[in-house]
Amino acid sequence: MTQATVRVPIGKVHGGVTQPQEDLLAVEEPLEIRLGSQSLSVTMRTPGDDFELAAGFLLAEGIVSSASQILHIANSELNIVVVELSAEVVIQPVQPQRSFMMTSACGLCGKASLQALEANRCPVLPPRRFNIDSHVIHRLPLELRQKQDVFESTGGLHAAALFNPDGELESLREDVGRHNAVDKLVGHALLSCRTPLRDSMMLVSGRASYELVQKALVAGIPVLAAVGAPSSLAVATAERCGMTLIGFLRDGRFNLYTGSL
Amino acid sequence: MTQATVRVPIGKVHGGVTQPQEDLLAVEEPLEIRLGSQSLSVTMRTPGDDFELAAGFLLAEGIVSSASQILHIANSELNIVVVELSAEVVIQPVQPQRSFMMTSACGLCGKASLQALEANRCPVLPPRRFNIDSHVIHRLPLELRQKQDVFESTGGLHAAALFNPDGELESLREDVGRHNAVDKLVGHALLSCRTPLRDSMMLVSGRASYELVQKALVAGIPVLAAVGAPSSLAVATAERCGMTLIGFLRDGRFNLYTGSL
Repeated sequence: MTQATVRVPIGKVHGGVTQPQEDLLAVEEPLEIRLGSQSLSVTMRTPGDDFELAAGFLLAEGIVSSASQILHIANSELNIVVVELSAEVVIQPVQPQRSFMMTSACGLCGKASLQALEANRCPVLPPRRFNIDSHVIHRLPLELRQKQDVFESTGGLHAAALFNPDGELESLREDVGRHNAVDKLVGHALLSCRTPLRDSMMLVSGRASYELVQKALVAGIPVLAAVGAPSSLAVATAERCGMTLIGFLRDGRFNLYTGSL
Repeated sequence: MTQATVRVPIGKVHGGVTQPQEDLLAVEEPLEIRLGSQSLSVTMRTPGDDFELAAGFLLAEGIVSSASQILHIANSELNIVVVELSAEVVIQPVQPQRSFMMTSACGLCGKASLQALEANRCPVLPPRRFNIDSHVIHRLPLELRQKQDVFESTGGLHAAALFNPDGELESLREDVGRHNAVDKLVGHALLSCRTPLRDSMMLVSGRASYELVQKALVAGIPVLAAVGAPSSLAVATAERCGMTLIGFLRDGRFNLYTGSL
């Protein structure tokens, strides 16, 4: 079984000084849930308790209502869980006219299978055209907070913002869903014919998941900074695709997970 | 257009004293994205910049690569955005053998249409069988933190826990995805034949979205407490279904959004 945490080498930046160090990441990996031979869904999860995850998911989706309807749960291979249901359970087939594509606003949960996820691989970025001043990075969260709207006062919104290489805020969007805040920000740039965003940095108010890295990569953004922690798959994907990924950006410090300044 | 925030009456609890007050919530509502007459996806979002959201989503999903492929974006009705793409854009149809059900681990993003969301309405709970001691509630976050595993040290994990009415921790799960943490917790109870969880309270480490309220309701949990803010739809759904919803549970205070102690 895969571990729930993994150690990675990082650069720990305090002010203008970078020290090599190790950091502990939460593991994020896709889990495909199958009903018999049929792929049902893929979710990005931390490995562990996968059978419980599948059972709870089936309950929440209204597919089962009791444990007796679940005959068997097993791993067919790594990151795939196969559930056998009792014959009494009736599955609603897709209405093709209402759902001709398997996709979701999460970028990947809602994908039907690991194959569908693989088919949507992130693009590798061209070399970055600007250097990063660490003092510019330190200032970004303050810039973000100063520009956030009155509705930040709810405490319930995620923010995502684009900055130019000098740290000037270009645009900002807020939403209850962090993937939506990023979609709105990137959508604004797309509709303004500004993509790929080769000379922009993105800051997100929360954690950096795979999904946010994927959305930034597709938009061509070479630098992603998060106020919170990144996941293992966020770091691995940023590394593979040539993105600079910054985490725990707060109080004059940040961690450099991939890339250089 | 719908507002991005809404005011609701709450009970502000400090120690053992409850004062009526108002609170500002971030609005969460479903947005259905259609390509022509075809429903593509539903996401729970804060209203505003919906056309940008749709455009950014289409880019992230690899459906479009430039603004020129988007001919027109319009609202057909409230919470539905219709996108017309240029004829050059090729949409991959669903492979029926790989995705026979439209669903996702998010509980609802990934649903194909608002109709599919409506079909999956939350159940109304029976009357609660226990009273809540506010001092028990105040202690829950500390109990949670004390029991969290070593991997809380990553700073990247959401936690969800079940407590009995006396505030004793029954089970705890952690995950990079908060919906997964809840699915694992509920799945454990389901597989132990303990659902519906009529005599349990659930605590989640982050915010309370509609999706978490929905998952708790399906599991029969009468009390949901969140360390962070709830969304408008979380409050409205908890109210309609007879759930007690507590938010901003920290430092000896909490907000009572629905139900009573």
